[in-house]
Amino acid sequence: MHSLLAVGSVAYDDLDGPYGKHVDLLGGSGSFFATAASYLSQNVSLIAVVGDDFAPEHLEFFDSRGIDCSGLEKQAGKTFHWSGIYSDDLTSRESLKTELGVFADFEPKLLDDHKKSELLFLGNIHPSLQQSVLDQIDSPMLVAADTMNFWIDGALDALRTTLSRVDTLLINDEEARQLAGKHNLVAAAEEILKMGPSSVVIKRGDSGALLFYDGGIFAAPALPLEEVRDPTGAGDSFAGGFMGYLARCGELDALAIRSAMIFGSVMASFAVQQFSLDGLRNLDNGTIQKRFDAFYDLANFAPVRL
Amino acid sequence: MHSLLAVGSVAYDDLDGPYGKHVDLLGGSGSFFATAASYLSQNVSLIAVVGDDFAPEHLEFFDSRGIDCSGLEKQAGKTFHWSGIYSDDLTSRESLKTELGVFADFEPKLLDDHKKSELLFLGNIHPSLQQSVLDQIDSPMLVAADTMNFWIDGALDALRTTLSRVDTLLINDEEARQLAGKHNLVAAAEEILKMGPSSVVIKRGDSGALLFYDGGIFAAPALPLEEVRDPTGAGDSFAGGFMGYLARCGELDALAIRSAMIFGSVMASFAVQQFSLDGLRNLDNGTIQKRFDAFYDLANFAPVRL
Repeated sequence: MHSLLAVGSVAYDDLDGPYGKHVDLLGGSGSFFATAASYLSQNVSLIAVVGDDFAPEHLEFFDSRGIDCSGLEKQAGKTFHWSGIYSDDLTSRESLKTELGVFADFEPKLLDDHKKSELLFLGNIHPSLQQSVLDQIDSPMLVAADTMNFWIDGALDALRTTLSRVDTLLINDEEARQLAGKHNLVAAAEEILKMGPSSVVIKRGDSGALLFYDGGIFAAPALPLEEVRDPTGAGDSFAGGFMGYLARCGELDALAIRSAMIFGSVMASFAVQQFSLDGLRNLDNGTIQKRFDAFYDLANFAPVRL
Repeated sequence: MHSLLAVGSVAYDDLDGPYGKHVDLLGGSGSFFATAASYLSQNVSLIAVVGDDFAPEHLEFFDSRGIDCSGLEKQAGKTFHWSGIYSDDLTSRESLKTELGVFADFEPKLLDDHKKSELLFLGNIHPSLQQSVLDQIDSPMLVAADTMNFWIDGALDALRTTLSRVDTLLINDEEARQLAGKHNLVAAAEEILKMGPSSVVIKRGDSGALLFYDGGIFAAPALPLEEVRDPTGAGDSFAGGFMGYLARCGELDALAIRSAMIFGSVMASFAVQQFSLDGLRNLDNGTIQKRFDAFYDLANFAPVRL
């Protein structure tokens, strides 16, 4: 069992789309990540900032999940608030409003305990803030990071410095293409691996996720779901399942990382079935095992000798 | 070992796209299907029609692959000629010209030997022609069929009659959505299974292929390829690998069908790497086994108990 530290955003989201309008939903990369990870590891800490409008029941929810929130600062002002609208088929979305609030001056500060963390996840925040976390932490065994088109467009130099310091980049397909300047995903992954990481996970929504590493390529399928209500946080839930499993199993070899890809897919599949974190609220070992087994059955075939 | 009969088109294609203009390429659903299947089964027969412009070397190629062409009619007139243009990323294409030639009056006729075939593939031709083949064949163990948006739009009643008589429908994702009138692929597959087939294979290009059947769902990954030159015939090559493996192994249970999905993916992955049938020209057991093993490595992960 390894300790797992995550830095990211805790936010409120307003969403519009085929299932109607929903406001003030608990969201943010840190919330999804830590909640998903909490089902696999009892040693998850979250570094983030919220405003004084942050609802006590949301803090209680993190507590109930056993997430260490000693690094979750509360500051005077408003919690990060994002609003967006999804297309009817949920395959694309548009940001309508991004109010940074207290997140605008976020300076992640690691407590002494956090500095000893063995696994670190740098959620989707400014690459310079990701680096300030790397400057503070002692010597993690594995550093994974996420990013987005906004930083690829606006902070590419800082992002490249971050990338030179991380082991695993988790990124979606369009962002991978943009970052690498290559449309082909194999070529894009090769380009990204040259930037520093030893592995890159390319998330492709309902087409699954691809892991590129020096041992080859692993394709995690997406579970075909009849009901998908809200893709918000799917990527962060994937990252939470991925890192949570690595924290749980204590190994970082290819076998463990392949299983971690599936636990990432498992947690993402739960997340998208409900709004906000609701798909991640009432899980237990049994439901997670059953979903993992469904992925195994989905992907399993026998070797054949011609 | 089962005998495998295929009916489809043999055509010449003109293609334009990111790799330049190519004219008079050997193509057609029957050509791709039979060639792909010929690497897995020595008992493949093709029913199709060509014009008197059909090049002898193309007939010789089919012969060299051991494909029984006794049902390949030669008629006065021109061979079916299709031309299309691909988008720069090869993910979409537009038909520019479709000259049916001798294919306009195609009436598939089965020789006595063909009527005893154990496996039948109905390539993408008019659903009424597909039915005329079903009327002529004795009692195949498995009938698989393909179709396309053109018939869903223009011959839906005939297509539904065909579907009520086939075991397995192979179709791409957009066509599945159109046929079922449902965007969600799980819902679309359920709707299609109600139309008659006991299984449906939904082909998703570089997102792989999904098999829906009463035992569940199987996801075959697509092999991430750095070089993709020509997606023409990928679906027919998939079908050829799929049916060719079933003909080879002699079983039709879920285990065999899952392996067949992978051999379909294997043959499609070879086909798209070159123009026309060139990616399927110089294979052997060794190269096919190696590609199958690459798929196994791509998809393989260990079961985990939480």
